[in-house]
Amino acid sequence: MSDGLKIGLAGVGTVGGGLLQLLAAHGESLAARAGRPIEVVAVSTLEDRRNKNVDISAFRRAPDPVSLATNPDIDVFVELMGGEGGVAKDSVEAALRAGKHVVTANKALLAHHGASLAALAEKNGVALNFEAAVAGGIPVVKAIRESLQGNDIRRVYGILNGTCNYILTQMEREGRSFAEVLKEAQAQGYAEADPTFDIGGFDTAHKLALLTSLAFGTRVNFDSVYIEGIERITPADIEAAGDLGYRIKLLGVALRTESGIEQRVHPTMVPKHTAIAEVDGVLNCVAVTGDFVGDVVLIGRGAGGEATASAVVSDLIDIARGNILPPFGATSKALKPYRQAQMQAHEGGYYIRLSVYDRTGTFAAISSRMAAQGISIESIVQRRPGAKLPGFNRRDEGEPAFVVMITHRTTEAAVRKALDAIERDGHVDQQPQMIRIEKL
Amino acid sequence: MSDGLKIGLAGVGTVGGGLLQLLAAHGESLAARAGRPIEVVAVSTLEDRRNKNVDISAFRRAPDPVSLATNPDIDVFVELMGGEGGVAKDSVEAALRAGKHVVTANKALLAHHGASLAALAEKNGVALNFEAAVAGGIPVVKAIRESLQGNDIRRVYGILNGTCNYILTQMEREGRSFAEVLKEAQAQGYAEADPTFDIGGFDTAHKLALLTSLAFGTRVNFDSVYIEGIERITPADIEAAGDLGYRIKLLGVALRTESGIEQRVHPTMVPKHTAIAEVDGVLNCVAVTGDFVGDVVLIGRGAGGEATASAVVSDLIDIARGNILPPFGATSKALKPYRQAQMQAHEGGYYIRLSVYDRTGTFAAISSRMAAQGISIESIVQRRPGAKLPGFNRRDEGEPAFVVMITHRTTEAAVRKALDAIERDGHVDQQPQMIRIEKL
Repeated sequence: MSDGLKIGLAGVGTVGGGLLQLLAAHGESLAARAGRPIEVVAVSTLEDRRNKNVDISAFRRAPDPVSLATNPDIDVFVELMGGEGGVAKDSVEAALRAGKHVVTANKALLAHHGASLAALAEKNGVALNFEAAVAGGIPVVKAIRESLQGNDIRRVYGILNGTCNYILTQMEREGRSFAEVLKEAQAQGYAEADPTFDIGGFDTAHKLALLTSLAFGTRVNFDSVYIEGIERITPADIEAAGDLGYRIKLLGVALRTESGIEQRVHPTMVPKHTAIAEVDGVLNCVAVTGDFVGDVVLIGRGAGGEATASAVVSDLIDIARGNILPPFGATSKALKPYRQAQMQAHEGGYYIRLSVYDRTGTFAAISSRMAAQGISIESIVQRRPGAKLPGFNRRDEGEPAFVVMITHRTTEAAVRKALDAIERDGHVDQQPQMIRIEKL
Repeated sequence: MSDGLKIGLAGVGTVGGGLLQLLAAHGESLAARAGRPIEVVAVSTLEDRRNKNVDISAFRRAPDPVSLATNPDIDVFVELMGGEGGVAKDSVEAALRAGKHVVTANKALLAHHGASLAALAEKNGVALNFEAAVAGGIPVVKAIRESLQGNDIRRVYGILNGTCNYILTQMEREGRSFAEVLKEAQAQGYAEADPTFDIGGFDTAHKLALLTSLAFGTRVNFDSVYIEGIERITPADIEAAGDLGYRIKLLGVALRTESGIEQRVHPTMVPKHTAIAEVDGVLNCVAVTGDFVGDVVLIGRGAGGEATASAVVSDLIDIARGNILPPFGATSKALKPYRQAQMQAHEGGYYIRLSVYDRTGTFAAISSRMAAQGISIESIVQRRPGAKLPGFNRRDEGEPAFVVMITHRTTEAAVRKALDAIERDGHVDQQPQMIRIEKL
């Protein structure tokens, strides 16, 4: 057996701790599979972020991540600190420049600086592996980069944030509001004290930007991701979606169209009785559509120290075995420029919920605004006896009531114009709700 | 760019034709990804099995597969003929002995001869890749062999035969009998004229034997797979399963237990509202349970020329790039001996359907036979008004009626003994139906 693969680990929090546990548990079988032992040489960690369940007394402590990254004793710098810039960026750059392989779970860093870091890795002939950065333990980076290479990929989408999926699942199960469920999720540790990054869709957008580059062979382009979070989803929407045969998920979707690439993160109606609709709680999933393979769907744990450590280790084994690929599948030179499709040109079906004053002529006025934009309506939710969600039915004249409709295929621009006009007409007492539908 | 990777293709049927179409469509991008062009040098095919939609006039024709396999001009022998022995085995062996890499979609060949062929490949320092042999386009071989290597895998299972899944899906949707749906599936080309191999579970068993070896690091052992087909499933079972919160799928399941490895293929009740329960029609899926990653589920097309070609190409790219691994992940020497668990020791819940004579004392007699084996009952289907499935309810005294029950966790031996005793008692007018339940 050849010499060990020597690791410097920066960050011993949830994921770093999981990695040390995995290496301790399965060191011997990993050595057999990788052809050489994987050895942690030194670690660097902030005391207050450290996973206290893991004993790190046996490891040399590096004074800081940057000096660890350039330590002549290491072959691979494993960056598990997180953060889109700062010391994470400095240390990864230092490692690549020093000719060290890098393994990272840092989606924010790669979404913002992936193109330049990949070029730096190539220039220095080293790996920059990031299986753990997208969808935790689900082996989707390798699946796209190596297994589905025979395909022209047209679409990639997924449930990429466990916090959002947990909140939406709980809202549906318990019929409770977003605010209530979020509070509970925070108390239980499923959501951060400052949850904006998750529930606002930004974490999903980071991961989507990486998937887009891998799937389409284009340079990472985070800035063109259209982002909406789940804050405005109400129990009424979830219930109406159910009545209409859908569930609501926060999806990241990347689509190649005639006019360019769409990258969008938003609450999405997906048809019931599909695998993706059944991905509940903190689970993640990713679906890839290729011209030969068709749809491939991968489901698993998108976060957590243990599952994410499994992904980090697969990256390490690839390096140990010498299976080194350009970070985004194609070399920097071969990556195509990113051509952005305008969000206004997005085509699809829409769910629309209006809180209207129930007066004579209201529905006619709404209908004519939709028709003026060429939007045709596929279905309208009718009020069922005893249902909690009011449909468009006469109650006390002049009181607000909900109208819920599903459109046929139309454009984002048409829907926005119609809704603006309806709002200006003064028929609604709240901002209209609009949720895009994704046909699977 | 280095020299092309030179392919000899044996078998230009559905999959071979798909491969030639893929290489023609994406040759240039494949060359960029593989670092070298992939060139078909010669083909060998039986005229009457040939895909007539593909033009092969541009290729040299080899007189037979064995001479193609040893042709000095080829680097890789691609075997897409099928068959567990005969010319497939002869030509693959000849190729490996001649130092050629082999890519095959032939599960029967590998299930029966995988261990010796893997040893032969290792001895000659070449690849024996078979991504296309298990679950068509789903990249599960690579996922287990490379991505999930950090895990101790405890279980692997899946829906591995599209024909069976299509038949079960249609039986459920249309409430029709197995025989009727099979006949229709044959007419539509979803089932073979002689369907035994698919519906009897043998094809699933071949694929399971390969997954077991990959997942557990044991030598392929097809002979110890317990096999039941779907022939005995009735619409009454499917409906009762639905009432009880389950759907019926033909699963291949491999499980590591204290007493050894279980490999079993049988109709299985899986809980509704899980991703695997929503895998319908000709789709396949595979689920892997690892100690760190948890459950990873992969879903996609399990057959068809295009999807399977996608898998063949991923194997070819690995060879072109020099990413060569032992066929079953570990070297032949490192593969552990297979220790078989006895099927009688299998533990789990069971669905039992009895067609009983509805006489005073019948239920008491049945209950006491179950109790004598220590089996406790979780639920019994009650007859609902208007339901097509009769439960245990009094109709005309002495007429047969169905009793459907779900047991708590028990053993195969206990269930079989109880059912034998019930049959001997003369309370039933048909052989009892028994379907195992898999908790996901």
